[in-house]
Amino acid sequence: MSYHKMWADLGMNLEAHDQLLQVLSDGYQKQFLTQKNRPAGMQYLDFVVSEIHGLRVKELVDAQQAGRKVVGSFCVFVPEELILAVDAISVGLCTGAEVGFELAEQYLPRNTCALVKSSFGFKLAGLCPYMETSDVIVGENTCDGKKKGYEQFKDLVKNLYVMDLPQMKSVAGKELLKAEFIRFAAYLEKLTGKKITAASLKEAIRVVNAKRSAVARLARLRAASPAPISGLDSLLINQIFFNENPERFTENINKLCDELEVRIEKGDGVALKDAPRILVSGCPMAVPNWKIPAIIEQNGAVIVGEELCTGERGARWLTEIKGTTVPELIDALVERYWQIDCAVFTPNEDRLASVKKMVADYQADGVLQYSLQFCQPYTIESGLFEKQLEANGIPVLNIETDYSMEDMGQLATRIEAFIERIKQ
Amino acid sequence: MSYHKMWADLGMNLEAHDQLLQVLSDGYQKQFLTQKNRPAGMQYLDFVVSEIHGLRVKELVDAQQAGRKVVGSFCVFVPEELILAVDAISVGLCTGAEVGFELAEQYLPRNTCALVKSSFGFKLAGLCPYMETSDVIVGENTCDGKKKGYEQFKDLVKNLYVMDLPQMKSVAGKELLKAEFIRFAAYLEKLTGKKITAASLKEAIRVVNAKRSAVARLARLRAASPAPISGLDSLLINQIFFNENPERFTENINKLCDELEVRIEKGDGVALKDAPRILVSGCPMAVPNWKIPAIIEQNGAVIVGEELCTGERGARWLTEIKGTTVPELIDALVERYWQIDCAVFTPNEDRLASVKKMVADYQADGVLQYSLQFCQPYTIESGLFEKQLEANGIPVLNIETDYSMEDMGQLATRIEAFIERIKQ
Repeated sequence: MSYHKMWADLGMNLEAHDQLLQVLSDGYQKQFLTQKNRPAGMQYLDFVVSEIHGLRVKELVDAQQAGRKVVGSFCVFVPEELILAVDAISVGLCTGAEVGFELAEQYLPRNTCALVKSSFGFKLAGLCPYMETSDVIVGENTCDGKKKGYEQFKDLVKNLYVMDLPQMKSVAGKELLKAEFIRFAAYLEKLTGKKITAASLKEAIRVVNAKRSAVARLARLRAASPAPISGLDSLLINQIFFNENPERFTENINKLCDELEVRIEKGDGVALKDAPRILVSGCPMAVPNWKIPAIIEQNGAVIVGEELCTGERGARWLTEIKGTTVPELIDALVERYWQIDCAVFTPNEDRLASVKKMVADYQADGVLQYSLQFCQPYTIESGLFEKQLEANGIPVLNIETDYSMEDMGQLATRIEAFIERIKQ
Repeated sequence: MSYHKMWADLGMNLEAHDQLLQVLSDGYQKQFLTQKNRPAGMQYLDFVVSEIHGLRVKELVDAQQAGRKVVGSFCVFVPEELILAVDAISVGLCTGAEVGFELAEQYLPRNTCALVKSSFGFKLAGLCPYMETSDVIVGENTCDGKKKGYEQFKDLVKNLYVMDLPQMKSVAGKELLKAEFIRFAAYLEKLTGKKITAASLKEAIRVVNAKRSAVARLARLRAASPAPISGLDSLLINQIFFNENPERFTENINKLCDELEVRIEKGDGVALKDAPRILVSGCPMAVPNWKIPAIIEQNGAVIVGEELCTGERGARWLTEIKGTTVPELIDALVERYWQIDCAVFTPNEDRLASVKKMVADYQADGVLQYSLQFCQPYTIESGLFEKQLEANGIPVLNIETDYSMEDMGQLATRIEAFIERIKQ
């Protein structure tokens, strides 16, 4: 089926977009479909990816025609539960490829991280159907690049809403987060003309909890040896988490987990039993940013966990459904999101504890800390964490890169050497 | 008088420090003392600079021996009034020179701004007597580099206190600032063992208001043509603002202003009447970072204002002394500091308005936007402001640099060309 008319109606750049889809498809073929002994359940993901700019976008457009709203966002702090509670649809926006960077640099300094540049690039080059579909784009103050970038991004999109975030886990910081959730709830009610009720919010929390539980179940299964699923496939699941219909996603990931449980019982897996096990930790990796996991797993190691926003930092923690009123349920949401150990917080010791716990839980032999160049929060934290993890006998490799392919050779050399180190 | 024993007692690196003082002295001679027709009142500043690591530090050490505390800080958000209200001394810390960068880069990514690297460098190289004297160093969450840097800086100094800051001028943001001022007041009381009283706080506000009024008076006088004082000398005054005894500073700056008023009446000044007039705007310039103003004024233009933290962003706005209780006076402080138009805030439209107003008030012919490389808040804002200022017919030159001298030739060429442009 061709979606060219839909993309044209969305105002996208058809020619460049066709090229992008081709590159995406080639990369997917090469990196994902060549993997050995993949679980059958990954066929669901293969289909989702093949239709990521097609069928899923059509669903959004159809939903809009039926009167629903689409809310696009970039960050795990944006509470999907509130979006679902007004019967709107939550989607993650495109930020994972080096597209439109020349255009982006008319707005941003060259020394801006690839993720922020990519968000501008996708918009300016007309390549992200999710941005074009979104009735509102929700930004958030997680870092200087995003925070200050939104001041210009607002002129490029029809409707930008910026959510403030605390920087310290203080009483006043928590009050600020709560005030922002209440403001966002009111905004969503106005956007959609629908009231958030205790019933609609409870149901939304249930849906999102179920989605997070499925991903948490997947994460636990990866503790097995041999690893029942690759890190590449697991990362993909964590990426698709942000864009798929949540109920369909939950159902399919649980089915996949059923399959993995059978595998584990049989001692079947995707890697050798003695394959070095790596935890990847740091900056988010958005589709199609599969560069680092691909190098790791092509070199004989297996990734057993993602301490990333596109990973446990996004999916961990359930919301405790307590209370019978909307304010009480919003309080419960604040409690859940307050646990996020994003590098926006200072100090961020919870995150270090979490990395150590994941190393233990998933029996990782080492940690690859992944930072986007110019991402000061994660690059600075990675320097601090490296010392503390190594002091705890956990080998660490710090990688600082962007979305280009220019450093692939150098990265492969460093990652191979790290794999050799942790094998011993 | 030799201060070597004092510096040795402070644990400083004597040899490297002697070299630094020599470089500072040479630079000062070359850049400041060669200026023509300087006001006689600048002799006070010459003396202060010549004793900046000597007599002033001795005053701090003597005060400590008499039981007073020294509070060092880096930022205009740290309320000096609260520090004075517990009879402590407030000093700005060293951040303006490329020292100890190799050591600093063991903690910070190379892609960190020179100011943050310099703060680590001064500490690690043992070159800042103010850091060594400080009973506490107060950091603050103004940007990612500082915020995350403090997580490691705390291990390098005996006592670090970090003040949180809001990022948006919302109700919750203001509550956060207020909570932080209250927390800081309690901290200072504990540090010094002295209670803040309404009387001590009122007196402290009076002292700081007087200091800010003196600098504001100086700023207004620079509207005259020909300019009665150079930008270099004015910047120096704004830098010394953070380290000098406030009452002595106020008295001497007012005396200098008396002299400038006489000059203005006589039509006397430091530049030609038709010299191009430049407003410098952007990142703070700490001692001895005089690179950009020196190039500007050596090329026949004159700086008529500093829209910097070491300038009007630090010194503008008085605290209205209203209320008779400590909480009421702290509220008054919050009102004052809430007006600061730092790039930590998003959006930061007040700052753009302020730049335009300064251009009009001081009859500037153009704006040089000064950004430290990797300072995302100011570099991104400078891109946005450039478009808006140029659209208002105000010529803009954006400079992104660090503390090294390697780009002096290139900067001189660009600044000369800008001066030619605004002459026309």
